[in-house]
Amino acid sequence: MSKITDPVDVLGTKAKAASRKLYSVTTDTKNKALTEMAKAIKSGTEQILQANNEDMRVAVAKGTTAALLDRLLLNEERVLDMAKALVDIADLDDPIGKIVDEWKRPNDLDIKRVRVPLGVIGVIYEARPNVTVEAAGLCLKTSNAVILRGGSLAFKTNKALVDILQVAASKAGVPDNAIAMIEDVSHETADKFMALQDLDVLIPRGGEKLKEAVVEKAKVPVLWAAAGNCHTYVDKDADIDMARKIAINAKVQRPGVCNAMETLLVHKDIADSFLPETIKELQENEVEIRGDETTQSLAPNVKEATDGDYYTEFLDLILAIKVVNSVDEAIEHINKFGTLHSEAIVTADQKTAKKFKTNIDAAVVYVNASTRFTDGGEFGLGAEMGISTQKLHVRGPMGLEALTSTKYVIEGNGQIRG
Amino acid sequence: MSKITDPVDVLGTKAKAASRKLYSVTTDTKNKALTEMAKAIKSGTEQILQANNEDMRVAVAKGTTAALLDRLLLNEERVLDMAKALVDIADLDDPIGKIVDEWKRPNDLDIKRVRVPLGVIGVIYEARPNVTVEAAGLCLKTSNAVILRGGSLAFKTNKALVDILQVAASKAGVPDNAIAMIEDVSHETADKFMALQDLDVLIPRGGEKLKEAVVEKAKVPVLWAAAGNCHTYVDKDADIDMARKIAINAKVQRPGVCNAMETLLVHKDIADSFLPETIKELQENEVEIRGDETTQSLAPNVKEATDGDYYTEFLDLILAIKVVNSVDEAIEHINKFGTLHSEAIVTADQKTAKKFKTNIDAAVVYVNASTRFTDGGEFGLGAEMGISTQKLHVRGPMGLEALTSTKYVIEGNGQIRG
Repeated sequence: MSKITDPVDVLGTKAKAASRKLYSVTTDTKNKALTEMAKAIKSGTEQILQANNEDMRVAVAKGTTAALLDRLLLNEERVLDMAKALVDIADLDDPIGKIVDEWKRPNDLDIKRVRVPLGVIGVIYEARPNVTVEAAGLCLKTSNAVILRGGSLAFKTNKALVDILQVAASKAGVPDNAIAMIEDVSHETADKFMALQDLDVLIPRGGEKLKEAVVEKAKVPVLWAAAGNCHTYVDKDADIDMARKIAINAKVQRPGVCNAMETLLVHKDIADSFLPETIKELQENEVEIRGDETTQSLAPNVKEATDGDYYTEFLDLILAIKVVNSVDEAIEHINKFGTLHSEAIVTADQKTAKKFKTNIDAAVVYVNASTRFTDGGEFGLGAEMGISTQKLHVRGPMGLEALTSTKYVIEGNGQIRG
Repeated sequence: MSKITDPVDVLGTKAKAASRKLYSVTTDTKNKALTEMAKAIKSGTEQILQANNEDMRVAVAKGTTAALLDRLLLNEERVLDMAKALVDIADLDDPIGKIVDEWKRPNDLDIKRVRVPLGVIGVIYEARPNVTVEAAGLCLKTSNAVILRGGSLAFKTNKALVDILQVAASKAGVPDNAIAMIEDVSHETADKFMALQDLDVLIPRGGEKLKEAVVEKAKVPVLWAAAGNCHTYVDKDADIDMARKIAINAKVQRPGVCNAMETLLVHKDIADSFLPETIKELQENEVEIRGDETTQSLAPNVKEATDGDYYTEFLDLILAIKVVNSVDEAIEHINKFGTLHSEAIVTADQKTAKKFKTNIDAAVVYVNASTRFTDGGEFGLGAEMGISTQKLHVRGPMGLEALTSTKYVIEGNGQIRG
């Protein structure tokens, strides 16, 4: 084999070697490292904020949107939160080495299925620097090597964070290159990274466009945490007051996140009594409403909703509304326009709820609750690597187990196959 | 949206619609259909064998290899085996609808994780017609729609089988298009199929080349069942007699399958006492030996082994041998040249065994047993869709659960996020 010289390939080879060494790193060492990493982040606050300040200056000069600047911006509190995330991860049970199943065969072979690391995890993401710290922590806890590739806007911040994490991890006995970072933020290097064969899995954390690029270019399995075009369906048998509270919460409480509602579907029999008041309250909360004809006839200041609107994850104070004839039409609409993320029904009718639960094709289906609960913390799973909207391996919040595989370990005393 | 006219896209749309209908098909209906399908295969034996005869005639005229002809050939016994496989699948527990986990949150939200179908499964495979029947049966049992694309050599056989299965399934109440087949065997159509977005997962069953083409072209997650470049490592502390029996079995008992041994690694301290006799017995079984220098010095008629040999899944009576200095060197060799399938150590030393179990990166790791046991039936899992050598979702034999996903079903009484 010829010598490897491309920097991305070199990093891949080093991370692969580190991942092999991680097979025999103990839980104690990993937890000690996570605790030391948390301390180092705290005591490195000034250095981190300074790097972030430089990133912010460039980002502002480039005319970056306010929403993106807010994601990029760190302050002391946010740095402390990052340190706390690492401590929380240290406190979680170590899944590695756990025996998932065990049985004996008639020929006396002892079969165990054991939880093991994936190997090398690639994470490609956009502006938020906390992803750098959380991904490093979650991968270390699961004995995986990680290669991080954050957005160019956050480059200096990410570099400062990774430098600090690497030193602390190494001191605690973690193999070198277990936490690695792509330090060239060019698109060409991103493309090379996505196609890297030394990865065991690639996780894109961002919008549909990033996901599509990754799926197109990856040579290894992809676990995507992508868009949430989430719906709430208010059934004819809904408690109107409950439905209004859920709809307002799902749209308004934090519109910029993937579990926020983007389209509200309303049964025609309840539209008259539910929509005018609800739309008024949404508009009081500065939500722009785009609706079908019926919706437009029931409330003022409603723009026309197009199919394009129904396909859009607004991530903003914009809501599409459609009045439907039945729960079946609601299900059909959601399965067509949705992104398999989080979908809610509000109804008092158990039969209708059952139909919705059975037929909606999504990671999380809610009955009489806000879609905003789709979150590792809210589920009680601890930290997460995003919300998987694909169906293989893990669906919904990706906790520690999502970052593991299993292997069969079979012990015999000379068995051969007849 | 413009009208869909491409035949592959049309089939995708129809299969997607069928998969949605399958959400509410009961276990009883599925089992009844499987039983009826088995009966129909049996009573259609003549029609199937006639179609197979036509395929065989063309294949022979094309100069197809004996090994491939053997995979393609059906006879009454093999048809009965296919019918029996369907009955066996009917007898398995239905995983769909099972509650995998359930817990309550402090805010009273009730969280369930429920096993659900994947949706539409694409299966692309080579000459063996039994894959047609088993894939159709396994997908139906897990409430998935399936689109089958078998090799061109087996086209008429597969068409006869699918025609029979479709009629029987439909009579039993299975939605139309739940079992679909790509009837155009051109490469162009295969490419379109691999890129079909309506699939939820694509499963290639064949060699590394097919796997690579699928990974390259697929727009959906791929579950590959690919090559097994399997090793047996005979440690210095091995029972020599046990090691010889295991090595002979792993190589000779059925050399054409993915869990057969392709390379034998031997600790230098035991090479003198182990290799000459073992090589002699292998050669008596018509195995061609390719070895490193030490191996060549220990036995006659040993060709030189190259790195290319160590990378090769021979699927034939050929064996590469290498003498190594330590278990560490064996582990390094396997992790470098292997395909993450099945790897065995023969040793009486528990510490060495532990090192091997911990550090070998493979779906199945054996201590003192033949690699030939990697098989759904041998594991007691029932029928399988091949052996997964990737790390996400399922590793090792792919039984019914491998063809399912989960979804969270969350019930509340008006909870909103604060």
